[in-house]
Amino acid sequence: MEFGKVVVVGGGVLGTQIALMCAYTGHDTTIWLRSEGSVGRTQPKIQHYEEAMLADLEAAKKLIGNPMGGFLYPRGLITKWEGMTPEEIDRLAAQAKERFGSLLHISLNMAEALKGADVVIESMSENPQAKVEIYEKMRDLLDEKTLLLTNTSTLLPSMFAEHTGRPDRYLALHFANSIWKNNTAEVMGHAGTSPESFRKAVEFAQELQMVPLQLHKEQPGYILNSLLVPFLNAAEMLWAEGVSDPETIDKTWQLGTGAPVGPFKILDIVGLETAYNIVSLNPESKKEGSTMQKIAALLKEKIDKGEKGINAGKGFYTY
Amino acid sequence: MEFGKVVVVGGGVLGTQIALMCAYTGHDTTIWLRSEGSVGRTQPKIQHYEEAMLADLEAAKKLIGNPMGGFLYPRGLITKWEGMTPEEIDRLAAQAKERFGSLLHISLNMAEALKGADVVIESMSENPQAKVEIYEKMRDLLDEKTLLLTNTSTLLPSMFAEHTGRPDRYLALHFANSIWKNNTAEVMGHAGTSPESFRKAVEFAQELQMVPLQLHKEQPGYILNSLLVPFLNAAEMLWAEGVSDPETIDKTWQLGTGAPVGPFKILDIVGLETAYNIVSLNPESKKEGSTMQKIAALLKEKIDKGEKGINAGKGFYTY
Repeated sequence: MEFGKVVVVGGGVLGTQIALMCAYTGHDTTIWLRSEGSVGRTQPKIQHYEEAMLADLEAAKKLIGNPMGGFLYPRGLITKWEGMTPEEIDRLAAQAKERFGSLLHISLNMAEALKGADVVIESMSENPQAKVEIYEKMRDLLDEKTLLLTNTSTLLPSMFAEHTGRPDRYLALHFANSIWKNNTAEVMGHAGTSPESFRKAVEFAQELQMVPLQLHKEQPGYILNSLLVPFLNAAEMLWAEGVSDPETIDKTWQLGTGAPVGPFKILDIVGLETAYNIVSLNPESKKEGSTMQKIAALLKEKIDKGEKGINAGKGFYTY
Repeated sequence: MEFGKVVVVGGGVLGTQIALMCAYTGHDTTIWLRSEGSVGRTQPKIQHYEEAMLADLEAAKKLIGNPMGGFLYPRGLITKWEGMTPEEIDRLAAQAKERFGSLLHISLNMAEALKGADVVIESMSENPQAKVEIYEKMRDLLDEKTLLLTNTSTLLPSMFAEHTGRPDRYLALHFANSIWKNNTAEVMGHAGTSPESFRKAVEFAQELQMVPLQLHKEQPGYILNSLLVPFLNAAEMLWAEGVSDPETIDKTWQLGTGAPVGPFKILDIVGLETAYNIVSLNPESKKEGSTMQKIAALLKEKIDKGEKGINAGKGFYTY
């Protein structure tokens, strides 16, 4: 392992998942949090995702011998499916419990947390001003060697590079939700990121059992959201303009491309509130009578009825 | 069967496939062609697709008992996969050969061909003027009862409704390429299509063992292309702007959404010439330095090298 000590800054949904994956793969991992209040909010999340990861390992036993198993096993947790045995899964689960217990720490002391870190991953909420503040607070506390990564989904590393005090050792490593199953990591530098740092971020992603997806230049939304946003928007337009209904649109996409899910099922997974926020960012959504405004209004209506997607038990489909 | 006699106007790739599916499902089917020259071009196509359909039936035997078989069998040719036997497939193949021989006719005589037709499917090339001419030629030869359908991909039924002389009995039924495998039929009326005609088109699609996908209003590109065009364009933009390479972009989409193929594999299937034509229709593609112009130039470069997609053996991937 090239990266012995990892620090995750922020204990939100993704921060917690990233920290658990770091510990799972044998890294000494510290989650830095701002206050005792943050600790109270983060600890239940850690427990929740720890249980989810262990439950998925346990469930993977039943996939052994199932011809679909190779598609369904949790790829972040299990690197090689072929020849997998229940005993090996038990060994991984026991090792995970041991590592979660011994390798995962929470700290409120930033200087202590950052000291000697090989990698620091900033995983704060998407507030540019808050990010600038945290980078400026960290800059004099970081070791010379430390690689600084951001998990931002919607912002760009170039917006913060100068504030970090180490633009050459700063770039984005963007994880997907449920990273122990969706084990991708989009690697994206800004113009001043050194090739060495980029290469290190790729290696670090691999150490975390992620598939690194490399971007050669900055792109808002990285690769996946750059494809998903216009795709989902096209589907929302057909729906809002009354061309067809969500079920038919999904069926068309599935039959036409062989995909397992269509755009409205994806919207249920993403969550209708996120979809609404994305649509609302588009200035068209403020124009009276525009398709974007119709989409926003229809999504709002569903959100107000509690139909927020898969986590709410109902969205475009009932779960 | 509600629709005994079917006429397909035009013997191109789709016209031929539609006619074969009509005969396969037991319909007396006539392909009307303009000239002896057209007959010479259409007959080899008929033979080609007839062989492809029979080959896929034969190949389906090997899928019996394969756990992936239920995903891979040719859905247009086999309506029920569960409990399928090699004997039943042999019976379907024998019936197909018999029907291709006895039910499929070519005619150069329009009046004779159209007489008594329950359904006529216009499947000419996408030339609006040529379509108007053919509709005006047909209008006084069609029976009162005949349902008139167009398989147009890029034009709208409202553009031709008045020229048909039967706007209430005229709408679009849009088939996918390789319809014996991709058995979808998008059903789309114009404002003057009667509900009765729409219902009939849905039933006719079902008689052809297609899955009817209903649109409630006119939409250029129907459902599938309304989703595919912006999706593929988003992928082309990432490629043309150097954000990432086709393999990485495809891998991101596949890992992120569980899809079996990514946008560049789909472009190889669609064909790069079609992709180039779609991009060229966008006025942005004429603007110096625009992303659309970069996309057009890159596609053109590949086409000029013969890398036209899956049918050419090479596109973004090598086959």
